[in-house]
Amino acid sequence: MTQPEVQWSSEEKEIAQQALKKAYEQDIEALISSVKEHAEKISETEDVWQLHDFLSAKRHDIDGKYDDRETFLMFTLSKLIKDRLLTLADLEDLAADKRAKISLLTRM
Amino acid sequence: MTQPEVQWSSEEKEIAQQALKKAYEQDIEALISSVKEHAEKISETEDVWQLHDFLSAKRHDIDGKYDDRETFLMFTLSKLIKDRLLTLADLEDLAADKRAKISLLTRM
Repeated sequence: MTQPEVQWSSEEKEIAQQALKKAYEQDIEALISSVKEHAEKISETEDVWQLHDFLSAKRHDIDGKYDDRETFLMFTLSKLIKDRLLTLADLEDLAADKRAKISLLTRM
Repeated sequence: MTQPEVQWSSEEKEIAQQALKKAYEQDIEALISSVKEHAEKISETEDVWQLHDFLSAKRHDIDGKYDDRETFLMFTLSKLIKDRLLTLADLEDLAADKRAKISLLTRM
């Protein structure tokens, strides 16, 4: 199924970029806290490798999560909402049809 | 060039195992301190990925460094001496010919 082409004005792209930036910063802030917390609790080898596995998974996750190419923006934003890094309220300045589509995607 | 077969008595294998254990514990202790130190200093994303890269490298290094198969013991021990995780004094109870060979390998 081909997703019908969605047009983004430069204003809307800027709104999306700001939302992505906000989510990313929140994501990284939580990651840093989590790493520090993990590290403090390390007492044996297995804890070190668990931290390594955790970082490998997070890096993979974050690398793919902020795709800002126009074709993927709807998916990117809906995924960030599903991951509780954004809410629809962060996108209130987007056109209503885009918000409706993003909202629909969060339920898929 | 084939390494001539070196025979290890069970006593000598036990000495080698003890030395490996000592080196491993020292290695892990240093690793844990290092990870905690790294983690405390994290302030931005790049620091997190640097910690991840560091852990990937250390895991790879440690995974290969403690090969206790009889055929590899000479190499394993000499490598640990080169890495300053053991000294020849830790192997003083080994037969003199083995110590001489290990010492030679540390200079290769």
